[in-house]
Amino acid sequence: MEASKTISLIHRGPDGSVGASDQVAVEEPLEIRLDGHPVAVVMRTPGDDLELVAGFLVTEGIVSSVNDLRKTEVRRDENRVLVFLKDGVEVDLGRLTRHLFSGSSCGLCGKATLEAIFTDFPPVTRKPEVADAVLLNAPGKLRAAQSAFDSTGGLHAAGIFSVDGELLVLREDIGRHNAVDKVIGHALLNGIALESVFLMVSGRVSFEILQKALAARIPVIAAISAPSSLAVEFAKSSGQTLIGFLRPPTFNRYAG
Amino acid sequence: MEASKTISLIHRGPDGSVGASDQVAVEEPLEIRLDGHPVAVVMRTPGDDLELVAGFLVTEGIVSSVNDLRKTEVRRDENRVLVFLKDGVEVDLGRLTRHLFSGSSCGLCGKATLEAIFTDFPPVTRKPEVADAVLLNAPGKLRAAQSAFDSTGGLHAAGIFSVDGELLVLREDIGRHNAVDKVIGHALLNGIALESVFLMVSGRVSFEILQKALAARIPVIAAISAPSSLAVEFAKSSGQTLIGFLRPPTFNRYAG
Repeated sequence: MEASKTISLIHRGPDGSVGASDQVAVEEPLEIRLDGHPVAVVMRTPGDDLELVAGFLVTEGIVSSVNDLRKTEVRRDENRVLVFLKDGVEVDLGRLTRHLFSGSSCGLCGKATLEAIFTDFPPVTRKPEVADAVLLNAPGKLRAAQSAFDSTGGLHAAGIFSVDGELLVLREDIGRHNAVDKVIGHALLNGIALESVFLMVSGRVSFEILQKALAARIPVIAAISAPSSLAVEFAKSSGQTLIGFLRPPTFNRYAG
Repeated sequence: MEASKTISLIHRGPDGSVGASDQVAVEEPLEIRLDGHPVAVVMRTPGDDLELVAGFLVTEGIVSSVNDLRKTEVRRDENRVLVFLKDGVEVDLGRLTRHLFSGSSCGLCGKATLEAIFTDFPPVTRKPEVADAVLLNAPGKLRAAQSAFDSTGGLHAAGIFSVDGELLVLREDIGRHNAVDKVIGHALLNGIALESVFLMVSGRVSFEILQKALAARIPVIAAISAPSSLAVEFAKSSGQTLIGFLRPPTFNRYAG
């Protein structure tokens, strides 16, 4: 199990300190190379690296489709994924240039100036209906499928559900955005039609989660916790449905 | 109160849906310009922007000290902070170049290759003693001082405490790293000696929090939730003390 590892620690309890051991979530860097050039390093939980990279390249707008990828090579030992593009595929070098300036906080890599933030993924025009009962059942399904969270307390989860409530894929990661990129990458690599699913995340939902979902054409996003103000505003502009505080028997609908 | 704003929503309860309103945490981009050049855009909760920028520039290693800053200008309306350096101050352009490749997930902006990750802030050599009782009292103090968390559920908090347990500064932000940069920036701008304090964060603790603390020379880091594997390994190498799951009456000591 790569997602967590056992470490030794000192546990301070009411009756004093004792040596103990615990599982912690694994965090390691992953370097992404595009036709030989390093384009990003992502701190991630190892596993599903190819899905992570495929999702990242599409949701950051660096390539427009996984069909642009000719060959990929996961070098697990080196924490590196090599991606080679098909002949004639143009990388959006403008986006790579905008990667020049990155945020320390999550969320704004690739946008150098305020004007460049709202990228031009077109809004959602048609959306599936997701029944309230389906939404209310989703957190339980996500939680039941989470393999590592309970043992480490340190992983975020993302899941893609069909509109009738089937959990199609779940991934966990130390990084909230990585979990999203992994499920999106999985869907893209496996031909899951993202126009008719919903995405659920285990925690809070920021602007960038909405933007990544829009890049992948996901119309409905649900979160266990709170949205940010910009996530709400983004969803209202993008036509996406945004559900927050999805905690049965209630939830909040912020947009859509 | 800039940290949160009221939005309207539809609340779906057991008995049906009703219109409602709620507070959400504000998320807005902040552009940092250094001598006229944009160097970063950070998604942050507005407020204490100058502290955020000062902390960011130091903890990312772009400048070595706040004394390098000649003049700063916060343009709140533009979501922009202008920073002008003193004559003769050399920005570490290598670091800016490494900003070329950024991670989608938090934490690795500024390091283009795996080899460049572990920056060369020297390890901590002397550390204050922080009594267990002081650590165990800190979460309550942090929580009591948090102004916005309870109303939005969407903000991370960071606090700097003296070794005898006084909360010297608390800041909240939609971004975990921003909250840390804000308290560090506050301390640097106000001459608080960071060699003899401890930093507490409201959530999980990743590699980058440890690295930012080390850049600011903070020797002891405590978190309410779990550390990542790399945070633990980093602390063991850096000589920092790392406390996790600080939930009275117990905590875990992972390093130091």
